[in-house]
This record gives sequence, structure tokens and C-alpha cells, in this order.
Amino acid sequence: MSAICHHTMSLDGFIAGPDDSMDWVFRYGTATSLAEETMEGIGAIVAGRRWYDLAVERWDGVDGIYGGNYEGKVFVLTHRPPPSAVNPRISFTSGGVQEAVSTAQDAAGEKDVGIFGASLSRQCLRAGLLDEIVIHLAPVLLGDGVRLFGGEGDRRIELDRVSVGEAERLTDLRFRVVKLRTVE
Amino acid sequence: MSAICHHTMSLDGFIAGPDDSMDWVFRYGTATSLAEETMEGIGAIVAGRRWYDLAVERWDGVDGIYGGNYEGKVFVLTHRPPPSAVNPRISFTSGGVQEAVSTAQDAAGEKDVGIFGASLSRQCLRAGLLDEIVIHLAPVLLGDGVRLFGGEGDRRIELDRVSVGEAERLTDLRFRVVKLRTVE
Repeated sequence: MSAICHHTMSLDGFIAGPDDSMDWVFRYGTATSLAEETMEGIGAIVAGRRWYDLAVERWDGVDGIYGGNYEGKVFVLTHRPPPSAVNPRISFTSGGVQEAVSTAQDAAGEKDVGIFGASLSRQCLRAGLLDEIVIHLAPVLLGDGVRLFGGEGDRRIELDRVSVGEAERLTDLRFRVVKLRTVE
Repeated sequence: MSAICHHTMSLDGFIAGPDDSMDWVFRYGTATSLAEETMEGIGAIVAGRRWYDLAVERWDGVDGIYGGNYEGKVFVLTHRPPPSAVNPRISFTSGGVQEAVSTAQDAAGEKDVGIFGASLSRQCLRAGLLDEIVIHLAPVLLGDGVRLFGGEGDRRIELDRVSVGEAERLTDLRFRVVKLRTVE
């Protein structure tokens, strides 16, 4: 099982436009074979608080994930959990990112863990917790918005391309994160 | 003939690393079929002053372009041209970006114009002068450096994917810029 960050990204590196807009994302199709394969492989999701707030505010919360086709649990990493439980499929966790991913891995069993949101994906990457990056590259330059990666003086991270595919208008890209081994 | 911006880009959108480093670019191979096709189609190049300074400082100036395989002219857009001529293949032009591209198009004849450098590519994109974007996507997250696109509140620009290809480690991507038509 792998921890996979899974996003549709513009050619200029944004996963959301200005004001977190996601209207553009549906213009290029969403049902690529890699998207379906990734979705079917995911047994638990870890998401950031910002992702959660937007999901509740703009979509149907966790019930809207993958167009309603995701039935697993969602672990929301936040230091300010809401006062009352909202949905039995959601757990709020205030530990570190490592603990959240580990808890999600237990819940996922043999399946993969999906990492949702730019900030959380970066945190997982920095902590060496991210195994794969799945990108549906959209044929658009958004110009501004929420970037998935980079720009904060992060260290260089090598990737191995696993697959490339052409969906209708999206380009499917799957990379494996090359992890540095610590020699004792 | 088209105006084409042609770059190797990391998955996080950088065409140069910190301190303009280009060491990474050769790690993933450079001789992709799209790179050769693009190179062979280019009859003139427009470059920014920053690109020029780096080319002279770190490579062999214009003689180092495309590993020495480019024999056309280079038009460097700058308001501070050097006091004396350096190479008969280089022209310094201080007019606008439109004038520079137009001059290069005349020099290119039936061939394409290559746009080199991040700042110039953005300027051409904003001015509606860019026809195609050729990217060799490198399997790396550089974390920091010089971004090709975005982040300055630019307007959204739609693209059409022309082709996708797998080179050894690079992913070749060719897009056509969808231009807005002004209705009179």
C-alpha cells in the first residue's frame, strides 16, 4: 500500500484557481483510467482542514468525494476540530502528519492512502511519507491560485515516472517518489 | 510559422533551480524526439537579457544553444544593450516584445520563432504572441528556482494539447495556446 497524492493540476502548477475555485477542473473531463484506478485503490483519505472546510462549504463534504463514489474514511488533520461530530466517516486528528497517515494506513488495510490538499501533500513530501504522485494535467494556465508544490525553498526531490496516459483532454501522470535511504 | 516557448520544466513548474542552476536539466536526457523536432523547426530565437547574461556567463553564449546545433539568429530584448557587438548572430533590440517577435519572424522566414526564458515567455503569453508551448517535463521537484508560469495574477489561458510523448525519463508535452478572438 502507498500514500498517494492525487490531484488535477494546471500546466502552471495550480490545483485550485483564485479563491479556491474548482470550476475549471470539470471542463477537461475527470473519468480518466488513471483516476479510476487510483480512486479504486484508495482505502482511506487524509485531508487538511482547509480541504475539509471547502468540501463542506462547496461540495457535499465527504459524500461528494470522487463524485460520491468513495465510501471509505476520511481523517482530517486539524488543531481545531469542530465541537460536534458531523459524519461517522470523518475523524478529526490533531496529532502530527505522520500519525495521521499511519492511522489512515491502518484503516486502509491493503489499500492505498489518498492525500488530499496542497498543504498536506507538501507536509507528507517533506516528512518522507509520500510514495506516489498522481496528476491529471489540465490543458490550462490558471495564472493564480493554490499551488500544489514548490516555492518555499524545499529541497530537491527526485521522481520516477511510472506511467503517462492521454485521457480526452487531460494528461495522466503517475510518479513514484524516490526516497533517500539513511545509511547507518 | 509559430512562436514557440520551449523549455524543460520540473513537475513543480521550474525551468531553473535556485541560483539559476541548470545542472539538473541534463540528468534526464535531452534528445527527445519532440526536442529535435522543435529545434529543427526554429529559424530564429528571441531571448531576454537575463537568459543572455546566463548563456554568456555559464554556457558558450549563443554558440551553446541546443548543444551547438542551432545556427540561426538570436534577438535579445533589452533596454541596456552591451556597448560593443559580441557575435554577429546576436542582435540587441530595445523595442517592445511585439517588435522583437515580429523581427524574429521575418528572420525565421517559413520557420518557427523560439521564445527563450521565463520572463519573456510570460510577456509573449500576455501579449497574445505565443502560439505553442513545448515542455519536456522532468521527473523532479526542484522546490525553488525560476518558475516558467503563473503566480502573478495572470488571467486564465486555455490550451489544446497537441501531443504527449515518453522520452527516456522526460515526458514530452506540446500545447497550442487558445487565443481569444476579438469580435468587432
